[in-house]
This record gives sequence, C-alpha cells and structure tokens, in this order.
Amino acid sequence: MKIAILGGTGDIGEGLALRWAKKHEIIIGSRNIEKAREASARYIELLKQANISAQISGVENHVAAKVSEVVVFSIPYQHAISTAMQLKNSFTDQIVISPIVPMSKKDRYYYDPSKDGCAALELKAALPESVKVVAAFQTIPANKLRNLDLQLDSDVVVCSDNAEAKQTVMKLVREIPNLRPLDGGTLESACYIESLTPLLINLAIENKMKDLSIKFL
Amino acid sequence: MKIAILGGTGDIGEGLALRWAKKHEIIIGSRNIEKAREASARYIELLKQANISAQISGVENHVAAKVSEVVVFSIPYQHAISTAMQLKNSFTDQIVISPIVPMSKKDRYYYDPSKDGCAALELKAALPESVKVVAAFQTIPANKLRNLDLQLDSDVVVCSDNAEAKQTVMKLVREIPNLRPLDGGTLESACYIESLTPLLINLAIENKMKDLSIKFL
Repeated sequence: MKIAILGGTGDIGEGLALRWAKKHEIIIGSRNIEKAREASARYIELLKQANISAQISGVENHVAAKVSEVVVFSIPYQHAISTAMQLKNSFTDQIVISPIVPMSKKDRYYYDPSKDGCAALELKAALPESVKVVAAFQTIPANKLRNLDLQLDSDVVVCSDNAEAKQTVMKLVREIPNLRPLDGGTLESACYIESLTPLLINLAIENKMKDLSIKFL
Repeated sequence: MKIAILGGTGDIGEGLALRWAKKHEIIIGSRNIEKAREASARYIELLKQANISAQISGVENHVAAKVSEVVVFSIPYQHAISTAMQLKNSFTDQIVISPIVPMSKKDRYYYDPSKDGCAALELKAALPESVKVVAAFQTIPANKLRNLDLQLDSDVVVCSDNAEAKQTVMKLVREIPNLRPLDGGTLESACYIESLTPLLINLAIENKMKDLSIKFL
C-alpha cells in the first residue's frame, strides 16, 4: 500500500513512517521538497541499521497526497486545516488519517477545538466529500512511536464515518507490534479522543511521568 | 477514618464501602433510612463471608454527611446537585468525593455537563465554601469495584483545588489493591476525566468488551 505522511519530517509522522516501512511504500510529504528528501534518506538509513530495507521517498505534500491510497496528516493543528484546503485538488477518494489535536497552553494544556467541532470534523469539511477521514493515533506519543526497540503496549481508538476505511486503518494499527486498535465509532466521537492528548500531557507533568499513552482494561 | 457513602445502596458506593470497610468506619447514607440499614447489613454479611469484620451503619443522608470526615457523593448526576443543596447544612469542612458524571444517551452516550462546567464544579458551588471537593473514581466500573476477588489494575485520576484533601483521597485510592492514584490537577480538570466515562461505555459497546477502566502507560 502507498502511504503518504504529510509533514512527515517530524513528530508522529516519523514514527509511523518507520513502523509502516517494513511492509508499505512510504511517501514523505513536506512543503519543502529538500526537507522531505532529507527525512526519507534519514529514515532509510535508520531502518538499514535495523536490517530493514525500505522503500521511502520524499516529495512535496501535494504530490505525496495525489499518488497515495492512505494519507496521514501529521501536521500541527495550527496549519493542518489551511494545508488541507490548499491541497484539496490532490485528493480524490483517499483514506485520510487525522492524528490532529487542537490544544492551547496556559497554566496547563487545554483541548481547544474550534466552534465547528473537533479537528477531525474540520479536516473532513476542508477536503472533498469523497475522501474518507479516519481519526487515530492522537494518544500515541511521538517519542515512543519512533523508538523501534520499544514495544508499544497501548490502544489506538479509531473513529470514522466510513466503515471500510476504519477497518483498513485498524489493520494498519495492528501491524505495529502491541498496538491494539479499538473501534471508536463515528468521526464525531473523535472529539473525546482528541481531548485525551492534553490530559495525557498534563498527567505526565503533574505526576513526573513521560510520554504517556492509554490502555483500556 | 469515618467515611460516608451517600447513595451507598448501589452503584460505585457499594464497591467503595466494601473496599474501604477493612480499614475505616463506613456510614451508608440514603434518603430512606430502611434502605441504608438494609445495605449496611448486606455489606457486613458480604464482608463476613470474606472473613473481614467491618463497622458499617446505615442512616439518612444528612446524618451520614454530618458525622463523617470524608463524604462520597455516589448519587446519579440527575439528583446529585439538588441533594447537595438540600444537605448543605450538614456540611462544615468535610472532604467530599465526586465520582459524578453528567451523561445523556442518544445513539450512544454523550458527556453532557451543564453550562456551569463539570459536575465536580457544580457540586462545589452547591456546598459551603469550606468543603473540600475532590473528583475521583469516575472511570472505575461499579461491577469491578464491588467484586472483592478482582484485582483492579487501573488508574484513578484525582482532581482538587485543595492539595491536602487531594493527598488524603489519593491515599484512600492506594488502599484499594492495584488501583493507582494519579494527580489530575485542579478541580476544573475533572471535566476531562468525567468525559472519559461515556467514552468507556461507548468503547465497551462498540468493541464487545465489558466494564472498561483506564490505565496510563
């Protein structure tokens, strides 16, 4: 499967690229093609050290989106929706994964969605109707995901209005060792999951813990 | 310590009474004194079968609140705030635990707080200022808590504006085997925790699981 990671030069995009490259072709997207190429070369090298040969390339965001079946929006909320609007013409019927979380920081972190609802719904509204938006990975810390030696004993709640796309993403979650996908219902339910991210950060700070994720037992 | 469990004739109140009775004096409160007495007799009998001798009594809510140092509001949201207002004169400077969650059910469960904020803040506003409200136990399923044979491998996030009261409740959490208390910050932060309850119920339904709780890893 061809998987594009927009904004794949950092944050959770790096971890997903490294984890999925064992089995899929990864297309790193960036506004800056040089950055995308540098990142893809770096990921190939990292995987080589782990004896994994991978097919990873770096291109501009709009090319990455156009040629892929699954597109991950690994872009901070502040830029994600405007980027989606700019890239609208590169989309037809891809599966788009939203790990996006609108947060603000005052004395602590707050979940801070726009009045239009959670980030996943905003992203859906910004893309063509035929695109299948799936919200996932909001609660997996980037540091844990990019560490290939780490077994991630965590849950990923997957929300979408498209049942088939949801199943595809749940399968992609299952391919990462010890990540368990859970069906989170419709895309609207992603609000509950997005709000977990500031909670996890605050809990980590208050309790002197690090890179918290969630498991439902 | 004297711990009152208002509405202690069912739901999470039963589990807390049974778990804490090993070490503390438990006062079951109810609107109906007969119900309170029946419940306390039943809990004593259940604990006897587990070879635990316990000091549990049943009285009316206002008496239970008045004589105790810690008061658990194990009352559904629909009645909790009005009950607090009625009982206001029974309170001085007790620690009050709010496991209360405002929920509504449509196609699924929704977190449905009033415009005044989360249930813990509403409860605080309904009681005298000298009362120390601590939000906790919203994510522990009643069925798991009341099953004394079950080891609960779960986290309880504890939120309060009063640091000392928060520590007391975190200690009470720790007394229940394999429950881990986490500092959740101020009482306002309880909104994030309250919203986890409908999420847990929805996830359980969607994924054919049962009585879910949470662990932060």
